[in-house]
Amino acid sequence: MTAPLKSTEEIDGTAPVAANGLAGQLTGIGRAARAAARVLALAPSEQKNSALRAMAAAVRMRKSEILRANAEDLADARSAAIGAAFIDRLSLDDSRVEAMAAGIEAIAGLNDPVGAITKSWIQPNGMTIERVRVPLGVIGIIYESRPNVTADAGALCLKSGNAAILRGGSDSLRSSGAICASLGQGLREAGLPEAAIQLVPTRDRAAVGLMLAGLDGTIDVIVPRGGKGLVARVQTEARVPVFAHLEGVCHVYVDKAASLDMAEKIVLNAKMRRTGVCGAAETLLVDRAAEGFVRPLIEMLLDAGCEIRGDGAMQAADSRVKPATEEDWGTEFLDAIIAAKVVDGVDGAIAHIERYGSHHTDAIVTGDQATAEKFLVQVDSAIVLHNASTQFADGGEFGFGAEIGIATGRLHARGPVGVEQLTTFKYRIRGSGQTRP
Amino acid sequence: MTAPLKSTEEIDGTAPVAANGLAGQLTGIGRAARAAARVLALAPSEQKNSALRAMAAAVRMRKSEILRANAEDLADARSAAIGAAFIDRLSLDDSRVEAMAAGIEAIAGLNDPVGAITKSWIQPNGMTIERVRVPLGVIGIIYESRPNVTADAGALCLKSGNAAILRGGSDSLRSSGAICASLGQGLREAGLPEAAIQLVPTRDRAAVGLMLAGLDGTIDVIVPRGGKGLVARVQTEARVPVFAHLEGVCHVYVDKAASLDMAEKIVLNAKMRRTGVCGAAETLLVDRAAEGFVRPLIEMLLDAGCEIRGDGAMQAADSRVKPATEEDWGTEFLDAIIAAKVVDGVDGAIAHIERYGSHHTDAIVTGDQATAEKFLVQVDSAIVLHNASTQFADGGEFGFGAEIGIATGRLHARGPVGVEQLTTFKYRIRGSGQTRP
Repeated sequence: MTAPLKSTEEIDGTAPVAANGLAGQLTGIGRAARAAARVLALAPSEQKNSALRAMAAAVRMRKSEILRANAEDLADARSAAIGAAFIDRLSLDDSRVEAMAAGIEAIAGLNDPVGAITKSWIQPNGMTIERVRVPLGVIGIIYESRPNVTADAGALCLKSGNAAILRGGSDSLRSSGAICASLGQGLREAGLPEAAIQLVPTRDRAAVGLMLAGLDGTIDVIVPRGGKGLVARVQTEARVPVFAHLEGVCHVYVDKAASLDMAEKIVLNAKMRRTGVCGAAETLLVDRAAEGFVRPLIEMLLDAGCEIRGDGAMQAADSRVKPATEEDWGTEFLDAIIAAKVVDGVDGAIAHIERYGSHHTDAIVTGDQATAEKFLVQVDSAIVLHNASTQFADGGEFGFGAEIGIATGRLHARGPVGVEQLTTFKYRIRGSGQTRP
Repeated sequence: MTAPLKSTEEIDGTAPVAANGLAGQLTGIGRAARAAARVLALAPSEQKNSALRAMAAAVRMRKSEILRANAEDLADARSAAIGAAFIDRLSLDDSRVEAMAAGIEAIAGLNDPVGAITKSWIQPNGMTIERVRVPLGVIGIIYESRPNVTADAGALCLKSGNAAILRGGSDSLRSSGAICASLGQGLREAGLPEAAIQLVPTRDRAAVGLMLAGLDGTIDVIVPRGGKGLVARVQTEARVPVFAHLEGVCHVYVDKAASLDMAEKIVLNAKMRRTGVCGAAETLLVDRAAEGFVRPLIEMLLDAGCEIRGDGAMQAADSRVKPATEEDWGTEFLDAIIAAKVVDGVDGAIAHIERYGSHHTDAIVTGDQATAEKFLVQVDSAIVLHNASTQFADGGEFGFGAEIGIATGRLHARGPVGVEQLTTFKYRIRGSGQTRP
């Protein structure tokens, strides 16, 4: 049985010596990750894939150990009277463990992004220049209660040749530890360093701050996985680059030249297919010149169980529409609630989206090509769609395979972050004695 | 005549009210840049090019105004007893003004990176997904005494659809102001907002700190242009992404399978063509199995006026070789000085470069393909070369046209940063009513 770990509060109250101890421990993890990253960067695809397959097999083989660790985490969480949604995210069972193993195998089946030549040309002096994908290095992942992130994130980093430093939620530490032990077994069996995937073995929250400071230059990128509070803290405090989106305030604009039938299908799907995902629509915008669309669209949403917070025109169409506040326009409800407004054509829609949106994913429904192009060009979001649902904002739906998240930052990775986006590049130049005049 | 500006010291000593005044002023500049960036992002190539051509014409037309402002800057610098090298960097004359104008015209002639579709595919459900280049947004450039950076950086940002906030050296403020006024005239004549290129109109050094904090979220990227002190400060303090290289500790490794003749030409060019550029070689590594190469290589360098700081084997070959200290291996001399060492083959060279290098540019000279490939794969630098000089580390030599600098960071831009690297991308998806199952 695992010895009970100290609570965060107990550790936070200790003297600076302990803090230095933690910093030293984490820097050690960082250095080991850096050394492992160097091995991974040069590991052949087949070795990485055989490690991934061995990891999946180890997760299956060690299922009872993983479920036992999870039961201990759950017992603590229940005795701390933690809410049901949290308990659900923390819980593992046979099918969730199998899904983890299958997820790792799916990542083994993806193309290896490392070594791909993305551009190649010959200079007039005869030198050939090629741009080739190489791993980023060491990726820090900071997540909350879902223990399966340990397997997903570790496998994606390994596939892309990166070392991973995982800092999961305190409440799932035993579960994540058991999963990470299985990943380590797979790495060992394939002859790769176990330090390629390391779990920070402490509940001390100061570990997060140390990771955000970059662990003495050993972390190249941080990926937060969790709620808005976690992402906001990471974005504010991190001294290293972050791949993240704070929120997805996604819009669907229905233009006067839309087919009402198509608009209904897209709006319903964008809002209601899954309300808790970042690509779910949070605001419906309807062209003022298409007033006839207002009532059918809002009645459809109301009938589907969606609350509507609308402007005057929306309220006038159905008494069940509640008045929208200014705050509602920029809110990510992540629930069966939508803000709804009538706007002055595509220009009004673009202006509204640029003012209140989060530059994540926005869609237009229209049969007019010129209007669609205007929207696609002028809306400054990571993903813009014409006549398709915002719920396609997902690496799998882009054909990227698994994703580690979606980024709304403008640099390096924007939109779904899959294995390709976890790489950088270098230039290789081949000459025959060229010198510069 | 321009009124004399307060010295930095005077302003640094003022009360918080003045600091708030400066913060407010800079935030205003940031917001104006953000608004201009939105216009630039949608400006057609021809409008941007006609602005660039008008900018070049205005620089030529307003030459006497620029030279008068420069003469005032120079008078102040001379009376402050500032060194000759600094005075040279600050000085403008007819030919330097003409070079600025011609440089802007050359940028007008480059391909517009904005709007280029870099990838496009069709998903099984019939949606087409394309990845298209869009500008980064607002770029902050922090530089030192060379006033021509005002024109170069402003023009590169405009071409790539980005707004620029320029913070030049205090000593060149009048010169940069006169140049920026010419750029503004060109923007106006082409119907683009003057706020597309703004110069921070103060000598107060607190302006740099405010820019590094991101000006209230209005700056997307910072590019420092100048010495190591400036770059180090920017890298340490910036809260926004930075495109930079701190130093170029570049290596040339001469393998036993090299042609001595080719090695001599490449080593001489890499070190001595221009010693002050970041791609200049700073360390020569020679294969222990090619001891016969040591004497000719070092005699050639000594004869060319290069000081050599070598290990025991190098010192044994010629009494003029000085002993190298541990520090010399990681030093960017930027002068006619080279550190030199005998290493154990390509593996020894790679280990040395990974330990002491700066991940900028490194070269191998060898006739053996397998050895060359090992070096190209394993050396983790932005640019790695086989049988060519490190002095090719330059956007122009890559065919990128002008560059704003060279980056050694791993994210987004690595190696030469030209107009393409000053863009990001978004995904445009075109469907026919697709919803997600």
